[in-house]
Amino acid sequence: MVYGPAIIEPVSEHSDFITRMKRLILSTRTRFQEVQIVELAELGRALVLDGFIQSTEADEHIYHESLVHPALLTHPSPERVLIIGGGEGATLREVLKHPTVKEAVMVDIDGELVEFAKKYLDFMHQGAFDDPRARVVIADGKEYVARAESGYFDAVVIDLIDPYAGELAKDLYSDAFYAEIKRVMKPDGIMVTQAGNSFFYPKVYTWVLNNVKAVFPIVREYWNWVPSFGYACNFIIGSLKHDPLTLSTDALREVFQARGLKTRYITPEAAHALLRLPVVVGSRT
Amino acid sequence: MVYGPAIIEPVSEHSDFITRMKRLILSTRTRFQEVQIVELAELGRALVLDGFIQSTEADEHIYHESLVHPALLTHPSPERVLIIGGGEGATLREVLKHPTVKEAVMVDIDGELVEFAKKYLDFMHQGAFDDPRARVVIADGKEYVARAESGYFDAVVIDLIDPYAGELAKDLYSDAFYAEIKRVMKPDGIMVTQAGNSFFYPKVYTWVLNNVKAVFPIVREYWNWVPSFGYACNFIIGSLKHDPLTLSTDALREVFQARGLKTRYITPEAAHALLRLPVVVGSRT
Amino acid sequence: MVYGPAIIEPVSEHSDFITRMKRLILSTRTRFQEVQIVELAELGRALVLDGFIQSTEADEHIYHESLVHPALLTHPSPERVLIIGGGEGATLREVLKHPTVKEAVMVDIDGELVEFAKKYLDFMHQGAFDDPRARVVIADGKEYVARAESGYFDAVVIDLIDPYAGELAKDLYSDAFYAEIKRVMKPDGIMVTQAGNSFFYPKVYTWVLNNVKAVFPIVREYWNWVPSFGYACNFIIGSLKHDPLTLSTDALREVFQARGLKTRYITPEAAHALLRLPVVVGSRT
Amino acid sequence: MVYGPAIIEPVSEHSDFITRMKRLILSTRTRFQEVQIVELAELGRALVLDGFIQSTEADEHIYHESLVHPALLTHPSPERVLIIGGGEGATLREVLKHPTVKEAVMVDIDGELVEFAKKYLDFMHQGAFDDPRARVVIADGKEYVARAESGYFDAVVIDLIDPYAGELAKDLYSDAFYAEIKRVMKPDGIMVTQAGNSFFYPKVYTWVLNNVKAVFPIVREYWNWVPSFGYACNFIIGSLKHDPLTLSTDALREVFQARGLKTRYITPEAAHALLRLPVVVGSRT
Repeated sequence: MVYGPAIIEPVSEHSDFITRMKRLILSTRTRFQEVQIVELAELGRALVLDGFIQSTEADEHIYHESLVHPALLTHPSPERVLIIGGGEGATLREVLKHPTVKEAVMVDIDGELVEFAKKYLDFMHQGAFDDPRARVVIADGKEYVARAESGYFDAVVIDLIDPYAGELAKDLYSDAFYAEIKRVMKPDGIMVTQAGNSFFYPKVYTWVLNNVKAVFPIVREYWNWVPSFGYACNFIIGSLKHDPLTLSTDALREVFQARGLKTRYITPEAAHALLRLPVVVGSRT
Repeated sequence: MVYGPAIIEPVSEHSDFITRMKRLILSTRTRFQEVQIVELAELGRALVLDGFIQSTEADEHIYHESLVHPALLTHPSPERVLIIGGGEGATLREVLKHPTVKEAVMVDIDGELVEFAKKYLDFMHQGAFDDPRARVVIADGKEYVARAESGYFDAVVIDLIDPYAGELAKDLYSDAFYAEIKRVMKPDGIMVTQAGNSFFYPKVYTWVLNNVKAVFPIVREYWNWVPSFGYACNFIIGSLKHDPLTLSTDALREVFQARGLKTRYITPEAAHALLRLPVVVGSRT
Repeated sequence: MVYGPAIIEPVSEHSDFITRMKRLILSTRTRFQEVQIVELAELGRALVLDGFIQSTEADEHIYHESLVHPALLTHPSPERVLIIGGGEGATLREVLKHPTVKEAVMVDIDGELVEFAKKYLDFMHQGAFDDPRARVVIADGKEYVARAESGYFDAVVIDLIDPYAGELAKDLYSDAFYAEIKRVMKPDGIMVTQAGNSFFYPKVYTWVLNNVKAVFPIVREYWNWVPSFGYACNFIIGSLKHDPLTLSTDALREVFQARGLKTRYITPEAAHALLRLPVVVGSRT
Repeated sequence: MVYGPAIIEPVSEHSDFITRMKRLILSTRTRFQEVQIVELAELGRALVLDGFIQSTEADEHIYHESLVHPALLTHPSPERVLIIGGGEGATLREVLKHPTVKEAVMVDIDGELVEFAKKYLDFMHQGAFDDPRARVVIADGKEYVARAESGYFDAVVIDLIDPYAGELAKDLYSDAFYAEIKRVMKPDGIMVTQAGNSFFYPKVYTWVLNNVKAVFPIVREYWNWVPSFGYACNFIIGSLKHDPLTLSTDALREVFQARGLKTRYITPEAAHALLRLPVVVGSRT
């Protein structure tokens, strides 16, 4: 066992992950969730929400680049992007790397969390909050989308806590919500959501997947190991027109070059490969 | 926390993985290692060596197929295959799926472990031990290779405990050992070894990688999440002539069809993708 | 370092205890509870109910002798003793050590558990189930007492899971139940109950204590560290006439000699001391 | 369920204790040890050295009063008291409660730790460092004693990390050290040391006990549950003339009154009882 200060996080109903902590920089409850900002022994500074490690200095690029780029690379010219959640600002940072983007609206319910991120997690946002193209809205994602203009966004990135991690986000994985997402998209819009873990939570994952399928004609799944989660995180793309699987590595390479994308993990080859690795749904299949 | 009976395993120097256990079928010490055969709540029957979960009913196919097929698919006609370690018999099982194979020699130091596998882990070997092409040798892998005929094997699969998991296997990740492996190979031989985890153990991983590079002209790396390890497992291919990266998905598909390969996880697309996903070495890079 | 198979048990709302396991002899669910019989690395064979270690080879004598003897030594001639719970048979064993006892009725709701104890935990009962003075009744303790004859028992020993450990036993710590216990006692009867832990569960403990006080004129508290519980276990005596505090060490020594008591932990000095050590209620007082 | 930030501490070779943490106030390495000052969810502010919880707001009085008073009550007039270790200042605080004390010398090797205690742990020292009778010496206990005047002290209180918790203190549990302690004592001096845990560490405990017996004619043992340690802590008194067991409760009460002792846990009855409870050495005896 790891001795001394540690973070203990659930991985699944029957499994836990323990990792040693060096500093506990902040530990509080906002109106919406328990928040810790910590310094982990191996993974650097990290954000913990309701006991779940959300992102760490050491591996947040794996998570955030995997979340954002496959969808945004697939869209020929994402100009208006909506981000639901993503309070750390790192999803915003990745979205803004695409120079096609003219407006990125980030909607997070927890204004206190966003302030903590600004103060303690600059390696996450890296100034993204100050980009003139960025707009941060502190609001319930569901309510924001309900009131948003139809046919406005080219892409939507949903970056919330796991669908089984609390009641806060459950509605935001429902087919009703995806229908609303579709409504606010342009006719060739593309959406991506993180989707927890399909191996340990096959029922919840399949529920989310089916909800996406009920709304979007093109649905693609992928996953990637995120060390600090103790599992590989799943992602689901729902698209109205553009299919990520039609892009060759060469085509992806062209988009990378055209957009001048600077990334740490996702390369054209990686984006291509990620979408082709089998996803295992269920620990018993 | 998971309450009641559980397996606690190290993931890294500062991280642990805990998973609930339903039955402890066997718990003993052989001459070489501590052995448990357990029934996990989520992952089914599992083998635990020196505290490390080696393989489980739920995810052993991810590990064993990822270990064996990229290398064996790369070789145009693997006839004689040497397996070092792999006491459960599942690596042998995957090797024998290639009908080109005429002789598969599995060398494991721990005869007791092999007997336990035969008795308790039939979902692993699935009769592989009884295949007339299989030969099981209970011996020290290093000594076996030292006495083996030069230029004999087409492929070598090294399936040992992690390089940092104990003293037993350390020699078997050294450049001296890889040189011996090369000696017993044909001039177009290919070798693959599991290599622990490059994210949490960058130094050890880099040491192993450099040892492979010191001996083999073609070296390829890949990794894949193995849920019961609590991490993504790395693999390193050392090849004398055939380069895994030169095979297109179509070429891989042809080999699959020609060999009539039946797999659960590795498809031609998966093998292609796996070799192209970036490997992250170190939690601080 | 605790790696490999282990039992993880809750100690309090915010604390857990982990101890390494060598064998998991039995793991099942009876109609009433989850049951494990295990071999612990340090504590020997043990019974685990709903995730809580109930008793182990190494320390069950501390628990069972502390539970039974202070009350039974206080009563000048306990002839008829009722035990509620105590499925392992060790409380019965301790009660039967008093030669004054002519009839010991043990009432446990879980007949399967009693059979497991007979089969796997002979160091607990040590033949007590076969003593002609013993009678084992498989029944709900509450219902048994409700139907039992008034004024029958000299002593009652309540040996149940912790009051906060599950719904099964909650009623059996209530004032209504204690009133029933009083009814089935002789006018000089004495009762003792284990009471969980007063340090970590002050509210529940105080509730139990007040329930005993509401019914019995003489109430005495004590506790003793039980290593496998991860805490000191509390006990509460409710007595109608005899006060444990009036017995000097000499008087206790006389009773020990007169009854020929053979014990491993409780001596006359220990019984005297145990009743005089301060009990700490609450971790914040 | 314990999720989120926690302290994980070893209880024994095969057992661990986990307790939830609210704040990590300080985490550093001094020249001698790893130091954390934390706020625990149930136990309040706490000091952690090398992974072992040393004392907490909730239970430090149980530990420190149990350590100091049995020995100091036994001595008819302790005037000069030496404390080895005890960097938090709480042992000093308890010693100074005896108005007979004219000089209390506290020798701790870790000056940084003492400064942290002054800054963050005022509930421990409660101003004891400012008492004109107190003298704090930052020095190696062994070296200090080696240079100290013979026949000077009435009482010595040894308050160090467990004998098996690190190399730092091992010498300070040796017979050679106890001989030196005897040398610096008056002919009727009395010494007490905490001694780790005799249940889980019988060999180390017996070694310490035998070391005390090799030097002191009168040796008394006792233990008391300290919740945050996950075990009952043992104490050993070595005395040159006064025997703690000869004091009746009445005699202890007189000393309490004469000295005007104000305590939270140790009463005359408790001191009497503590010395008479059986100590269990070894989990297998």
